[in-house]
Amino acid sequence: MEAIKVFCPATIANVSCGFDVLGLALDSVGDEMVVRKTTEKGIKITKLTGQDLPMETHQNVAGVAGLALLAESDYDGGFEIEIYKKIKAGSGIGSSAASAAGAVWAMNQLLGKPFSNLELVKFAMEGERLASGVAHADNVAPAIFGGFTLVRSYAPLDVVKINSPSELFATVIHPQIEIKTSDSRKILKTTISLEDGIKQWGNLGGLIAGLYTEDYGLIGRSLEDFIVEPIRSILIPGFDKVKSESLLAGALGCGISGSGPSIFALSQGEPNAKEVANAMREVYQKIGIDYDIHVSKINIEGIKIIK
Amino acid sequence: MEAIKVFCPATIANVSCGFDVLGLALDSVGDEMVVRKTTEKGIKITKLTGQDLPMETHQNVAGVAGLALLAESDYDGGFEIEIYKKIKAGSGIGSSAASAAGAVWAMNQLLGKPFSNLELVKFAMEGERLASGVAHADNVAPAIFGGFTLVRSYAPLDVVKINSPSELFATVIHPQIEIKTSDSRKILKTTISLEDGIKQWGNLGGLIAGLYTEDYGLIGRSLEDFIVEPIRSILIPGFDKVKSESLLAGALGCGISGSGPSIFALSQGEPNAKEVANAMREVYQKIGIDYDIHVSKINIEGIKIIK
Repeated sequence: MEAIKVFCPATIANVSCGFDVLGLALDSVGDEMVVRKTTEKGIKITKLTGQDLPMETHQNVAGVAGLALLAESDYDGGFEIEIYKKIKAGSGIGSSAASAAGAVWAMNQLLGKPFSNLELVKFAMEGERLASGVAHADNVAPAIFGGFTLVRSYAPLDVVKINSPSELFATVIHPQIEIKTSDSRKILKTTISLEDGIKQWGNLGGLIAGLYTEDYGLIGRSLEDFIVEPIRSILIPGFDKVKSESLLAGALGCGISGSGPSIFALSQGEPNAKEVANAMREVYQKIGIDYDIHVSKINIEGIKIIK
Repeated sequence: MEAIKVFCPATIANVSCGFDVLGLALDSVGDEMVVRKTTEKGIKITKLTGQDLPMETHQNVAGVAGLALLAESDYDGGFEIEIYKKIKAGSGIGSSAASAAGAVWAMNQLLGKPFSNLELVKFAMEGERLASGVAHADNVAPAIFGGFTLVRSYAPLDVVKINSPSELFATVIHPQIEIKTSDSRKILKTTISLEDGIKQWGNLGGLIAGLYTEDYGLIGRSLEDFIVEPIRSILIPGFDKVKSESLLAGALGCGISGSGPSIFALSQGEPNAKEVANAMREVYQKIGIDYDIHVSKINIEGIKIIK
């Protein structure tokens, strides 16, 4: 196999109570990439459509992630990458992660899978380091593993794939405002109260238990974030209203996707997820902010080959 | 039914990464209680052996928990309680919780089970409030529900019973030194770093996932406490040595049971749990501190009727 075309899913990181550790992959929105083996060494971005992003290898997240893979590989050729961005940069649903993860996943396929998913996460994290200054894994891990993933630990890196209940659907609305990941990290406090910490890990435990037992009520009760949402939501106009309307429309829970500005909700069943989409849409229509909106089942495969 | 005799298990609270939320019930150590209906209203402690504890109803954890139940019940009689303490007070394996939980569980049986397990936890928490000044639930919940329990939230109270892998065994050593729960809470800091918080909820998520998937390796990797153990372990002579020797002997993980001074380890299989017991024993024999030691499977039933 000399070339491969892949779908690279958008992802929701944090998922309310799982700041910096939890993420999930979406199904209905993602980038496409073509990755091709070349006899020439190194990585070349030969095409990039859909977003205005740097094509120079060292300035591109797919390029940097690919170089991290090549550095650990005994393959003596290189790769060309075409990137068809469908996920908007800065939307908070893992745009950089999709490109970085998709590139290394496709390369691994072309090389006969010498690397484990965990190793691919490590390579893709280098793309995240370029994009946001922090080599976080909570978007690249679900893109590569699929479903819900828990980054249990960074040192050493330990990623756990968590069960995804089959009726769980995500609604994501992206208000067209820009928040830089680095800015939204900057406003976080470096200390938290022990009391809030206890509530947070109680909820994370509840969410993980709910995902395994497919207890939608427990999932809903656990989707609460005492640490980050109270601070970051201030940066997102209309957040409180979108959240309250989503819950009124029957969402199990609602929160900030990654570092925002996208807002996600989880629902039981696609019809409910669509009602939640309508409720969210109405809020931004009233405010007069443009938006994209997606309803998606949880993507349990992650990145996949497409024709 | 007019009288009932029950076994009230000892419990391990916190379980390393689950400070204030996680607990598990033991099988091989616990109190026994006889609870008897009386026409006279109120609660009377008629016998108390094994420990020097107050028998006056308002000063006794079983008495106080029982009164909390009576206050919510339309039963117009009362109860007599005989308490046969086998769990040492102040040992850190839920001595007060066993008495409080056992009393209300037995009363509920005698009344035809008008109350849910969750309601029984609330009543028993009043006993904990008397014992330690804090109405915590992380010992009474596993005593009543059995197995591993997660106290997801206190307001409202939400208890989740978590799967207990069948090969999981606990070893608990109780060095004969006294640490008051109130003292060991006092030395805790009221704030923690966000960085430590993230590690802690990553581990709690990993532990819950490991319990559901019966992945003993993941359980072991997740049994790490970045928040409380580094502070509280200073109060327990020999803690670091007991922990390192337990891990060398093959324990999956090792930490402080509740607020100490007992130290627990979890192992895969009873033979390993016994090897860990030998390793722990040797440390305190060398130091010259007396100890009790228990090896137990996880008690998935909780409190139960005995003959």
